[in-house]
Amino acid sequence: MTDAQHDPADGIAFVNGAYVPLALASVPLIDRGFVRSDATYDVAHVWKGRFFRLEDHVERFLASMRGLRMSLAYSGADISEILEECVRRSGLRDAYVQMTCTRGVPPRGTRDPRLCQSRFYAFAQPFVWIANDEQRRDGLRMVISSVARIPPESVDPRIKNFHWLDLTMGIFEAYDRDAVVAVLVDRDGHITEGAGFNVFAVRNGRMATPERGVLEGVTRRTAIELAHEIGVPCEVRTLGADELRDADEIFITSTAGGIMPVTVIDGRNVGAGKPGPLTGRIHDLYWRRHEDGRLCKAVDYEKGRG
Amino acid sequence: MTDAQHDPADGIAFVNGAYVPLALASVPLIDRGFVRSDATYDVAHVWKGRFFRLEDHVERFLASMRGLRMSLAYSGADISEILEECVRRSGLRDAYVQMTCTRGVPPRGTRDPRLCQSRFYAFAQPFVWIANDEQRRDGLRMVISSVARIPPESVDPRIKNFHWLDLTMGIFEAYDRDAVVAVLVDRDGHITEGAGFNVFAVRNGRMATPERGVLEGVTRRTAIELAHEIGVPCEVRTLGADELRDADEIFITSTAGGIMPVTVIDGRNVGAGKPGPLTGRIHDLYWRRHEDGRLCKAVDYEKGRG
Repeated sequence: MTDAQHDPADGIAFVNGAYVPLALASVPLIDRGFVRSDATYDVAHVWKGRFFRLEDHVERFLASMRGLRMSLAYSGADISEILEECVRRSGLRDAYVQMTCTRGVPPRGTRDPRLCQSRFYAFAQPFVWIANDEQRRDGLRMVISSVARIPPESVDPRIKNFHWLDLTMGIFEAYDRDAVVAVLVDRDGHITEGAGFNVFAVRNGRMATPERGVLEGVTRRTAIELAHEIGVPCEVRTLGADELRDADEIFITSTAGGIMPVTVIDGRNVGAGKPGPLTGRIHDLYWRRHEDGRLCKAVDYEKGRG
Repeated sequence: MTDAQHDPADGIAFVNGAYVPLALASVPLIDRGFVRSDATYDVAHVWKGRFFRLEDHVERFLASMRGLRMSLAYSGADISEILEECVRRSGLRDAYVQMTCTRGVPPRGTRDPRLCQSRFYAFAQPFVWIANDEQRRDGLRMVISSVARIPPESVDPRIKNFHWLDLTMGIFEAYDRDAVVAVLVDRDGHITEGAGFNVFAVRNGRMATPERGVLEGVTRRTAIELAHEIGVPCEVRTLGADELRDADEIFITSTAGGIMPVTVIDGRNVGAGKPGPLTGRIHDLYWRRHEDGRLCKAVDYEKGRG
C-alpha cells in the first residue's frame, strides 16, 4: 500500500520522525511499549479546528514521562508542534490526538530498561466519542463493575498508561449486564474511574468526584472549575458505591466526548432516568469554553502551504 | 531494508500470516494490544534444538485467550507449528519463543472490544537469560520492592499479560538499591512474583512458593514436580516477606533461564551468601529434564528443505 491510497482524514501518525497514514503506522513487536506495556500517553482533542487545553495535556504527558523515568529529545513545544502537524496534514476539524512515549527496544541480550532509548509516537484521527449521539442525548447505562481498578500502590493512575485489562473486562461486564460503560471500584469498594473517563455524582445540588485511584483528567478538572465558577459545591473526595447508586445525577468526563450523562446505574434509573439539569449546565458550559481563547489554540491548517 | 539484510539468527517473527525478520516485525499503532495492552502472551523455549514443555505453554496460552474472551482461527496444533516454523527459519538451537494474541484493531468509530478481530503474533529470538553467566554462578542480588504487584482482583495474573509497569518500576528500584531483580509484595505484604519469574524460599530443607497473585509458571511447576520426585517437601502457600528474608536459600524460576540462585536480599546475604545445595540440585535436575523425551519436542530443522 502507498500513502496515496489513504485518505488523510482517516488519520495521520508521526512515527520515527516521519508523518505517515495512520493505517500504516506501527510499533516494533519488541518495543517494551508493546511487550511490557512500558509506555505512557496522553490524548488531546481538536474541536472546530482548535486544540482545547493542549498545554495541559502536554504538561501532564511530560510529567508522566518523568514518573516512568523516560525522556525524549523533544521539548513540550516540539511535541505540540508535531501534534499540530498531524492534525494539519489530516485536515480534520474535530480530532482525537494521541501522544505516546515508549521505553523503546532493549539493546540485544539485555533486559535492563535503563539501556533503552525512548520512542515517541503520535497521531490524529477523527474525534472519538465514548457515547454515541443517542447515548449523549438520553444518557448512558452504567454498571458498577465487580472488577477492582488497578490500585495506586501498583501503578500510579496519574501517569496515564495502557494498563487497561481491568477496564476492558469491565466493558465486557457492562455489555453482559445490559449497559455500555462500567465504573470500577477499589478494594474498599469506593468508586474510582472507568475506561477513559472520570465520574461525578450530583446529590442535593452538590457535585462529588473520587479523589484517589484515578487519572486526574483534564475534562474532570474543567468540570470542577466550571462548578466553582457557577457556585456549585464540588468535592474531590472518597465516593462510596452506594452514594453513586443514590445520586440525583451522574455524569462522566472524558477528552473523548466531554461531559456525558449517565441515566441508568446497575439497572436502576438515576433520578428521573433522564439527564439531569446540573449535568446539562456543565455540559453546555464545557462546550462554550471551547470558544475561550485562553484555553484554545487554533490549528493553522494553511501553514507551510506557501 | 529487505529480508536479505537480516540474519535469521537474530530472530524470525510471524505477523499477518507471513514470516519476517524480527527486526521488521511490528504491530499496528492502533491495535488495542498496544494502546490498551489488551493482549495475552506466552513464552516457550528451545534448548539444544528441542522445545521444552511446549504443549503446556500453548495450553496455557489458549486458556489465557479464553479468559480474555479472545479467539483465533488457529488451533493449538497450528500455533505449535507456527512457533516451530519461526525456530526452524531462524536456525536457532537455543531460542526464546513468544506467542501473542491481541484484541486487534477496532472497527472505525467504535470502542466495543467485542467487535475486534483478534490478531496473532509470534517470534523466535536468541535465548534470553534473566541472569547473566556470573549471576547464575554466584547468585542474584534481589530486593523486596516497595511497589505492590497488581492484585488478582484487578488483573488475573494466571492470564499472562503485559501489565508490567509495577514490575518495571521494581527493576528500577532494584538497580537503585544495588541489586538486579525485585520481587513484589501484595497489599498485605506477602511475597508475589518478579519481572518474569516466580520465587522459591528454602528453609530447613523445605521449599515454599507463593500460591496467590502470581503466574502459575511452567518452570515453577517443573521445580515443584522435581522437589516431589526427590522427596523434598514443597509448599504452595502464602509466603511472608520476613520468611523470604530469613530463608536458607532463595531461587527464582523462569522460562528465561530456568532455576537461578538469589544470594543477597535487601542487602543481606541469603544463608552463607552462596547458591545453596538444594537450589543446585533443582537446577541440575531441571536441565537434565531437557533430555526427557516426554517433555521435549525436537525441532525439525530440515523439514521442507527437500
